[in-house]
This record gives sequence, structure tokens and C-alpha cells, in this order.
Amino acid sequence: MILIDGCQYANWSEKIFREMNAGGVSAVHVTICYHEDFRETVENMADWNRMFERFPDLIVPGRTAEDVRRAHAEGRTAIVFGFQNCSPIEDDIGLVEICHQLGARFMQLTYNNQSLLATGCYEENDTGVTRMGRQVIAEMNRVGLVVDMSHSGERSTLEAIEISDRPIAITHANPAFWHPALSNKSDDVLKALGDSGGMLKFSLYPHHLKEKSDCTVESFCDMVARTADLMGIDHIGLGSDLC
Amino acid sequence: MILIDGCQYANWSEKIFREMNAGGVSAVHVTICYHEDFRETVENMADWNRMFERFPDLIVPGRTAEDVRRAHAEGRTAIVFGFQNCSPIEDDIGLVEICHQLGARFMQLTYNNQSLLATGCYEENDTGVTRMGRQVIAEMNRVGLVVDMSHSGERSTLEAIEISDRPIAITHANPAFWHPALSNKSDDVLKALGDSGGMLKFSLYPHHLKEKSDCTVESFCDMVARTADLMGIDHIGLGSDLC
Repeated sequence: MILIDGCQYANWSEKIFREMNAGGVSAVHVTICYHEDFRETVENMADWNRMFERFPDLIVPGRTAEDVRRAHAEGRTAIVFGFQNCSPIEDDIGLVEICHQLGARFMQLTYNNQSLLATGCYEENDTGVTRMGRQVIAEMNRVGLVVDMSHSGERSTLEAIEISDRPIAITHANPAFWHPALSNKSDDVLKALGDSGGMLKFSLYPHHLKEKSDCTVESFCDMVARTADLMGIDHIGLGSDLC
Repeated sequence: MILIDGCQYANWSEKIFREMNAGGVSAVHVTICYHEDFRETVENMADWNRMFERFPDLIVPGRTAEDVRRAHAEGRTAIVFGFQNCSPIEDDIGLVEICHQLGARFMQLTYNNQSLLATGCYEENDTGVTRMGRQVIAEMNRVGLVVDMSHSGERSTLEAIEISDRPIAITHANPAFWHPALSNKSDDVLKALGDSGGMLKFSLYPHHLKEKSDCTVESFCDMVARTADLMGIDHIGLGSDLC
């Protein structure tokens, strides 16, 4: 079995890389942007390039499924870049492919607030996927950048599932039936996600948990089982997020 | 035989791509930057991505020797990105690898004027490769970005040949013994280039030619033969440049 961490943010270090190797984590989707613009995101990528150079025995760039399989066979961890926002592409659709060339494999269309592409889950009014958003989803489908709607609003998320030719992901959220955090998802969203072949990764971020940091393992596992019944067991996984 | 154009600048179009295919040009080193900074250079790369998408039967990205061999076998032309200046890396050595990841394979350390890395051939005083220049050459060697000294001064060029662990290129220049243009090269430079395993590509830019646009084929070929005697026939090729 290949173990993948569906979404993670941390103060990355050799110590953490060694822990991931020891824990058999063959790949991790790493958040490398929340609000950074393109140039600032490239700076973060350059920082990761330095880590790949410093710790080649522990981590490798994760660009393809083959990279993950190779990391698994070698006991290393593949680092898969993801954006929690569309800020790195600014207002330039050409940057979608450029970011993909630089290793990005996940991009959220929004981070809580309205973006140029869609509406975030903290807005009162969700106007759905914008005109630019439709074009960007098509471009993301073309180049192979996964649409991630973890922090998006209900309507935007349902529309993204409908518009995208490829399955989308929600890399860190839980069902709203269990805990009504603003970024947790309704039954409608979870069913549409499962029916379209997409993936939900559960979140361990305290604000997404029932009883927050006092959440029990029993309560969490019961929620996972109920979500599996709702979506199908093939469409769920575990992600954690410290944002 | 695989035919490669050593350096080219043009108002690229489907017509030119078809002419290159018809002429059996399997690869061309394309100038995509003269004075652009990083963000502007990325814009040029995104423009090329659109051309790769529009004309997949005519052109392909040229990143490796295998890409060139495949283009040759398929009758297409591989496009190899090159910078005539170091402006795309600004003052950030991390951008060397980022530019390489985006497909750059040649970078001049200077374009006529002094840069952060070395001295251009139009300056009166050539102080050689700078402290940052030494670090950047090492990084270019590491990632596989060819050092190009076409528009650099005498001392800077000799030092770059000496400092670089990998052979360097002069992608568009002629011998100064034939025509004393400021970017044409001395016998000392040509000999050092040949001895170090580097490559000279001759230039068809009128200002680099004896008698400029009235240069005769006989005069040009005689110059090529004399340069081959000076450097060794394995170290010369043909490049043209409209800059």
C-alpha cells in the first residue's frame, strides 16, 4: 500500500522529512501558496529546489504517479506542490501551464474569499464559477492541474464539479453534517463529488473537527464511515491541514 | 545528419515553422529574451507554449538531445530556448534552476553592457566575471544551462571558459581577424574555446560580417576554413542572429 498525505502545511525541515520517511509516507501534497502572487510563489518553489538539492536521500519532486511509486520503492517521500488559492496565476491564463511546468499539481480556485475564478466559502453570496474560471478550469484539465475546491462556496463547488472534464479534489474538508465549519461540505457536494469520480480528503485541522481539538477518534471514525456510505469508499482519503 | 540552427531571432509564424520543417532544420536555438526581467521572460515562454499547442505537427519543445533526435525522426523542429542576457534571473540565483525547469538551455552572461555577472563587449573596461557571476556559472553547470558569451568582453569570456566546469558556447560571432566587430572574437578566445571543448557558431548578422550585407560567400567560407584550422573542425557550427 502506498501512503499519501492528501494536504499538508508545515515548517518543513530535515527532521520532518525523516519522520515522513520513517512513517512510510510516500507522497505528500504540500501547500506552497496561500496568497502569494506568481513571483512570490516562484520564490517558494526555488526554496523547495534548494531542499531537493540538500536532502536528495529523503525527498524527491513529485510530478507524476511514477515519481510516487519510485519514492515508495526507495523509502523516500515525493513532494507534490499545491496552491490553496489561484493568486499565483494572477490574471494571466498562460501562467496555468507555466505553474504546471514548475511542478504544481493542485490549485484551489478560491481561498475563502471571492477570487477571479469562483467564490470562497466565507462569502455571503456565491455567484459560482466566473467566466475566467471556466476558461481556467479547461486549461487546468488540459495541462493536468487538479481543481481543488476545499475552501470554495457551495454553488461554486457544484459548478466546478460539473464544468471540469476531469475529476476534481477536495483535499481537506469534512462533511457539514458532522461539523458545520464554513469550509466543510454539504451532502449535495459530497454526493456530486463521489458521482463524478472525485476525491475527498478528510481534514484534521481543529476548526474542521467536531469539538475541535477535543474531537475523539471514535467520533472522527464514525464520520468517516458515514461519509464512505454517502460517497463510496473509493472516493475518500485522509488529508491534514494546518492553515 | 541532424541540422541545428545555432541561434535565431525572428517574428515566428506557421510559415517559418513550415520552412524550417521543409529545410530539414531539426532544432533551433531561439532567442526569447534580450532585456526582459523574469516575469516578462515567463510571458514569452507562455507565448511559446501557445505556439506548441497550436502547431504540434510542426514544432516541439527542445529540452534534451533526445527531443532533437525525435524531432529529426518525425520531420519537426525542436525549439530550444535561449536568453541573450542574464536579466531573467534578476538578482536571484534561485531563478537559474527555475528558468531551466521552464525550458531555458542557453544564457548569455551579458548583452553588450555590464551585467551583474560579467562585462559586455561594448564596455571600455572589462573587469571579468563578477563574484555573483562565479556562483551563477557553477549553478548553470549544475542544472545544465549552457554559458553563452556571444556579446561578452574579452577578459570576461576567457574567464568564463576557465571557470566553467562544462564547455561553454559562443552561439553567434565571427573571428575578429576577419571583421573587427565588437562582439567578434580574438584568436586567444577562439583557441581557448576550442581547447576547452566549447562551440563557436558563426554569425550571419550583417554587422558581424566583412562588408556587412555585401559579404561574399567566398569570403565567408574562407573565414570558416581559417577558423576551423585555428579551433578544430569539431568546435564550429553555423548560427545566425538578427539582433
